[in-house]
Amino acid sequence: MAFSGEEDDGLVERVNKVTRDWGGKFAVWHEPKWENYVKGWQKKGGVVIHCTMYGERIQDIISSLKKESHDKDVLIVVGGEKVPGQMYRLADYNVAITSQPHSEIAALAILLDRLLEGRELDVEYEGARLKVVPQKRGKKLFAARRSI
Amino acid sequence: MAFSGEEDDGLVERVNKVTRDWGGKFAVWHEPKWENYVKGWQKKGGVVIHCTMYGERIQDIISSLKKESHDKDVLIVVGGEKVPGQMYRLADYNVAITSQPHSEIAALAILLDRLLEGRELDVEYEGARLKVVPQKRGKKLFAARRSI
Repeated sequence: MAFSGEEDDGLVERVNKVTRDWGGKFAVWHEPKWENYVKGWQKKGGVVIHCTMYGERIQDIISSLKKESHDKDVLIVVGGEKVPGQMYRLADYNVAITSQPHSEIAALAILLDRLLEGRELDVEYEGARLKVVPQKRGKKLFAARRSI
Repeated sequence: MAFSGEEDDGLVERVNKVTRDWGGKFAVWHEPKWENYVKGWQKKGGVVIHCTMYGERIQDIISSLKKESHDKDVLIVVGGEKVPGQMYRLADYNVAITSQPHSEIAALAILLDRLLEGRELDVEYEGARLKVVPQKRGKKLFAARRSI
C-alpha cells in the first residue's frame, strides 16, 4: 500500500506491527510522486481503478472490472475529499460504490469483496503470532511464541 | 443510529447536514444507556447483531442472519477497541467479517451488503438537494434549489 500526501512514520509502524502479529505480507510506504506511480503501474500493463462517488456505478461495470483483474495487476486508488482532477483522467476506471457520500474504507471493502467474490474471507495469513478462534460468545485468542 | 460514550454534537450536526443535502432518513443521537437500548430492542422482538473479529465467521452464519432480518428489526452494533464483555453476551449474534484486525466501518459495509444482497446500491434517497450523475471521468453534480 502506498500513500501520498504527508509522510507518516507512525502509520508505517502500525501496519508493520499488525503484520508481525497477525501475519500476511502487508506493507505500506510513502509515495511522494503518486502520478508517476500510477503511470508506472499502467506502463507495466497494470490496470488502475479509482474509487469515487462520482464514477460509474459498480453494479454496471463490475463484470468489466472482474475481467481486467483476472489477467492484470490491479491498483486501487482511494482518496480523501480533495482528489486532484488528474486522478480522474489517469484512472482506467472511476467506480462509484454508490454516489452518496460514504466512507472510502467501506468502498474499498465492497470493491475488494466483489472483485474477489468473497474469497478474501477464507484467507489464512502466513506468519501470524496471534490467531482468533471464532466463538458464538466471548473472545478466544491463540498466541504462539513463534509464527504459526 | 445511536452512539454511546461521549456526547458529540458535531457528529449529530454533520449527519444532519449530509441528510439535508443528500436525502434519506438518517438520524443519529447519543444513547447514554446502551445496555438498556439493546435490551429494549430485543424485548420488542428485534434481533441484535454485533460485529466483532472474535465472533462466528460471516460465511458460516449469513443464512441465519438473512432469515432473522427477513422477519425482525435488526440492530447492528459496531464498537471500538474496548467493547464491554456484556455486549458479547447480550448480542443474539456475534459475527466476524474475518478474524483479522480490520476497520469496523468496512465490516459494517460488508455485513449490510450481504444482508441486503446488494440492493442498497440501487436505493434512491428522497429529499435530496444534491445528486451525482455517474461519469466515466470527471464530476457531474446536480444541485436543485429545493428537494428533488
